[in-house]
Order: sequence, then structure tokens, then C-alpha cells
Amino acid sequence: MSHTVQNKSKLLARVRRLKGQMEAIERALEAEVSCAEILNLAASVRGATNGLVVELLEDHLRNHVVDVEGDAQRKAGADELIEVMRRHLK
Amino acid sequence: MSHTVQNKSKLLARVRRLKGQMEAIERALEAEVSCAEILNLAASVRGATNGLVVELLEDHLRNHVVDVEGDAQRKAGADELIEVMRRHLK
Amino acid sequence: MSHTVQNKSKLLARVRRLKGQMEAIERALEAEVSCAEILNLAASVRGATNGLVVELLEDHLRNHVVDVEGDAQRKAGADELIEVMRRHLK
Amino acid sequence: MSHTVQNKSKLLARVRRLKGQMEAIERALEAEVSCAEILNLAASVRGATNGLVVELLEDHLRNHVVDVEGDAQRKAGADELIEVMRRHLK
Repeated sequence: MSHTVQNKSKLLARVRRLKGQMEAIERALEAEVSCAEILNLAASVRGATNGLVVELLEDHLRNHVVDVEGDAQRKAGADELIEVMRRHLK
Repeated sequence: MSHTVQNKSKLLARVRRLKGQMEAIERALEAEVSCAEILNLAASVRGATNGLVVELLEDHLRNHVVDVEGDAQRKAGADELIEVMRRHLK
Repeated sequence: MSHTVQNKSKLLARVRRLKGQMEAIERALEAEVSCAEILNLAASVRGATNGLVVELLEDHLRNHVVDVEGDAQRKAGADELIEVMRRHLK
Repeated sequence: MSHTVQNKSKLLARVRRLKGQMEAIERALEAEVSCAEILNLAASVRGATNGLVVELLEDHLRNHVVDVEGDAQRKAGADELIEVMRRHLK
């Protein structure tokens, strides 16, 4: 079972909140509010997205590295985690 | 006139693309696809959000610091930019 | 005159502090302290480096975009800033 | 044994390279080279520091979560990793 299943509702709520923040930027652009305000909205989304990535890394670590049976599966879970960190956090 | 007006359609397209990426994560969570895949989607959104913030910083710089009349207005535009960078890039 | 001249001593102090933090990590590695501790030292350096980049961006903005004579020079200063942001903040 | 022991020489080389980069910024500030050049040096250090943090996270994962005996120790290693990610990657 996927880690995203276990924490599915919590993650879905977070993703929908992020989508709502993107819609707020869309409305702000259409309403031509000040660009400083839009910059702050976008910078908040950036922070929230970092938070989502960290939560997903954490879930993956718990469900695919810590709570698994067998060394091969554990190593595979760790390798996936390392690949994502290398590709996106550098 | 706001910088977001001048580049409005380009920025709107980018924001809507980002909203589409959030919806793709939402669907992936609901479809219970593998968490490694969801992690990669979320990490891509993180990269795209950084790109949006850089574009907004750039627009603000051009429209509220470079292309303005008067030193006071220029200084105000620069101060807004510095505040956003301090708050979000550190 | 370069912006780095005007704030030279402040920037030098910050850079030397960062060098000191790198030396602390070097000593910690040699003394074989716990890896959690080394991770925290390295993560602090990461934060301090972000702070240095933001300070340099800010100095550049003030000295090469705001406080310059002539539109061509102002535009050139802004272009340099945008290039660095595009290359490194994305 | 610490993970930093096993990869000690590789990590030490990386940390010394980073210290060398800080010294290059120090010399550039003293020589009053152009601020665009210093900005680029600093932005490179930022990238290199991100790389160091990712390498340390990876070593910690392999040595304190994957290759350990016993569930309690594995959980403790994962908790340390999560704490660092929460504190520094968000």
C-alpha cells in the first residue's frame, strides 16, 4: 500500500489549500492588485510547496524505508528518496 | 499601472499551468499512484513556483524600479523588492 | 565604485564568519562527532549562505540600479541582477 | 560508528573545497572586483552548500536508517533526519 494512501486525506487537504492559493493569485492578477501583493502571495505558495515536499519526503521515509519488511525493499525505498533529494534539493 | 497588468496574460498562463499541476497531484493522490511519482510531481511544482517568484521579482524590478519617474518612487519600488527577498529567499 | 566597496567591511565580516562555520564542520568531521550534529552545522551554513546572497542582491540593487546616473547604466545594473536571479534562484 | 566516519575523506574534501570558495569571495571583496562577479561566486557557494546538505542527508539515511540493526535504532535515525528536513528545507 502506498504511503500516500495512509495519509491521503491530510495530503489532499494540503494540496487543495495550495490549489486555492494559486486561484487567489489568479484572481489577484485579474483584479490587477499591486504587484507587491502578488509577489507576497507567490512567495507564500513557494513556502507552502516546500512544506508539501518535506511532508511527502517524510511520509516516504516512514512508509517505504522504516516500516517495511526485508532489506531489499528498504534499500529500494531509500534509493527512491535519495534520487528525489538529489534531483530537487540541490 | 501595475507591472502585473503589462505582463498579465503571460503571468496568468503560468499561474494556470501551476494550478493544473496542483490538480494533477490531487488526482494522483486520489488514484493512489506510487508515492515516488507524487513526490516527483510535487518537486516539479516547487521548481515551477520558484520560477514564478523569479519572474515576478524581475517584472517588479523592471516596472517599479527601472522604468519609473522620480527618485522617491524608485526607492519605494526597490524597498518593496528588498522586503520580499529578505522575507522569502533567506 | 563597486557596491562591494561601500559595504566592504560588513560583507567581509559576514564572509569570514561563514568561513569559520566551514572550519567548524571540518573540525567536527575530523573529531567524528555525530552525523546529526554535522547535518545541523551544514544546514546552518546553507541558511547563512542564502543570507549572504540576499545581502549582495540588495547591495547590487541599491548601488547599481537605484543610485546610478543615466538610464543605460540603470538598465545594465538591472540586467545583471536579473541574470543572477534567473541562474540561481530558480 | 558515525556515517561521517565512513565517508569522512570524501566529505572533508567537499568541505575544504567550500572553504576555498569562501576564501575566493574574501579575496574578491578585498580586491574590489565587480559586484556582479562576487554575486556569482556567492551564488555558487549557495549551490555547493545545498549539495553538501543533500550528501549528508543521504549518508545519514544509508548509515542510520537503512544499515542499522533493530527497529528502535532505525526509528531514531529516521526521526533525526525528519527533524533536520523540517527545520531546514521548509
